[in-house]
Amino acid sequence: MDNVNLKKIAETLNISISSVSRALRDSHEIGEKTKQKVRELAEQLNYMPNPYAGSLRKQRTRNIALVVPEVANNFFAMAINGIEAVAQEKGYHVLIYLTHDYLEKEMEIARHLLNGRVDGIIMSLSGETVSTDHLQKLTDKEIPIVFFDRIIETFSGGTVTTDDYDSGYKATEHLIQAGCKDIAYLSISKHLYIAQKRMQGYKDALQKNKIPLRDELIIQCSPDNNKNKELILKLLKSKNRPDGIFASVERLAIASYHACQELKLHIPKKVKIIGFSNLETAALLNPGLSTITQPAFDMGKEAATMLFRKLEKRTTINASEKVEIKSELVARGSTKAS
Amino acid sequence: MDNVNLKKIAETLNISISSVSRALRDSHEIGEKTKQKVRELAEQLNYMPNPYAGSLRKQRTRNIALVVPEVANNFFAMAINGIEAVAQEKGYHVLIYLTHDYLEKEMEIARHLLNGRVDGIIMSLSGETVSTDHLQKLTDKEIPIVFFDRIIETFSGGTVTTDDYDSGYKATEHLIQAGCKDIAYLSISKHLYIAQKRMQGYKDALQKNKIPLRDELIIQCSPDNNKNKELILKLLKSKNRPDGIFASVERLAIASYHACQELKLHIPKKVKIIGFSNLETAALLNPGLSTITQPAFDMGKEAATMLFRKLEKRTTINASEKVEIKSELVARGSTKAS
Repeated sequence: MDNVNLKKIAETLNISISSVSRALRDSHEIGEKTKQKVRELAEQLNYMPNPYAGSLRKQRTRNIALVVPEVANNFFAMAINGIEAVAQEKGYHVLIYLTHDYLEKEMEIARHLLNGRVDGIIMSLSGETVSTDHLQKLTDKEIPIVFFDRIIETFSGGTVTTDDYDSGYKATEHLIQAGCKDIAYLSISKHLYIAQKRMQGYKDALQKNKIPLRDELIIQCSPDNNKNKELILKLLKSKNRPDGIFASVERLAIASYHACQELKLHIPKKVKIIGFSNLETAALLNPGLSTITQPAFDMGKEAATMLFRKLEKRTTINASEKVEIKSELVARGSTKAS
Repeated sequence: MDNVNLKKIAETLNISISSVSRALRDSHEIGEKTKQKVRELAEQLNYMPNPYAGSLRKQRTRNIALVVPEVANNFFAMAINGIEAVAQEKGYHVLIYLTHDYLEKEMEIARHLLNGRVDGIIMSLSGETVSTDHLQKLTDKEIPIVFFDRIIETFSGGTVTTDDYDSGYKATEHLIQAGCKDIAYLSISKHLYIAQKRMQGYKDALQKNKIPLRDELIIQCSPDNNKNKELILKLLKSKNRPDGIFASVERLAIASYHACQELKLHIPKKVKIIGFSNLETAALLNPGLSTITQPAFDMGKEAATMLFRKLEKRTTINASEKVEIKSELVARGSTKAS
């Protein structure tokens, strides 16, 4: 950048030329707000950074990627708000990528991100993902990754989760206390760590209450929710119809309501339903849906905070930090004892 | 790229070296799938394009930006799916940016995109946006912009909308036919073209049915939905309480339900509600919400198709293309005549 432009920025913002220069070098001596103003002005003046000037420093993109399965889900929508709140404070943009719960799409996004488009990544894995091999190259390139909600436990990095085991246990016990004896568990993945935790909570609660586990009541669902409604219809039309449904994710609870509506099965008289969900309309449904409500905003905020600790080198990329924030069981009409 | 690597890619994919070379030059002679495979492999081999080799062609990023107010809204979530379906076919990534309905955030994103991070932009404007001055620099840089749903009519580019005027008219007439005489209109913006169209439909339907327009029944709502619930509570507690509510966007319909629940006002006996909405749970609410359902997926698909026509130079950036796709009125319990 030539001195004329440096001077122009300094005058416009009423700061010294050396401050402008330090801001453009992303120095820690300059506040985030000032840096952002300087960068914006530099952009307006069509300033292109000299690639040699900063050769000893890694060029920052000031972008972080957020890779999530879907956005038509209040959990993710609220988590995004938490992540953006932190990113905005740091002067970063959040680029959102959707996997639609498919591993193939997730792998394609990982390859795309190898190109150095972002400084760091926050991820919630697809239901099909069984390993993190496709993410190794990103870590090799020193792009830090933090997982939230749908994590892989073996990955050495940061994770933010909720108390999935306890929540699975509590939700199941809640159905048992409401009188259910045959409780179906709707799963999105056999492999995902949180899915295993939730299901283990379900199994242990059954055992503790001396209710035999029936394998045919554990339903593996699909990324395609239309197929799930069919699976649930089949389940509800079967001879040994369950009297309780535990939906491990929000859209499975919605599919269950649609199936009951179609079959004219009264909730909660004929079947009681509880689900992990941050649905804004949970209390407005007919009847209100009992939920395990996750601290979505806080989980997003915590994940972003953890990522910036890594970006600012306050922790190393591979530091294995784990944060768990508790969920809340909110009982509504769908699990009312009859 | 050295010849060793060109050869390696050619051998791996079982195509000729000249095909690899043409694929890397983004030649029209090579199919999209092959190009993508070549690019991915080149990425894996850490191929960095020679900036001089393609100096006569503009470097493509193979990204498009999608700038929307929010994602916790089924209209946008479904539109995103439509946009991604087209982008995927073309070998493009979609980077999603959220404005949270604030103009300031939208302006910041526009500045950010000036840096050449994307080849084109699909936008749905914030409720606060009154002009497109902040987008002019993008157009000057020959980055095409297509608007969907929340458009600015004066912008010379592409727009995809639904029949907002007709839908506003139909929804209002539907409430009148159900017996409503005092119909409140919940608006998100005075300025947005689609908001004006919807409201004009409302006004004209009242006039046609000889119902006087009451200014105090037109409520300007906020980007913050907590504030909106307070506004609606105030409206419903007023002496001349409306017997019908027309919510011009989904979250205002949800806020109306919450307000009625809090005041124990029976829907539809005391107040009938209809709203623009693609809510997945509309039929599951208590009572089911009558909706103007927009063709969200198709609108997204159409917007992306239009953008790629511009990117592929089959139309010029400023060609003023307009596509309108009709919405559907779905009557449910919330507007049942009493």
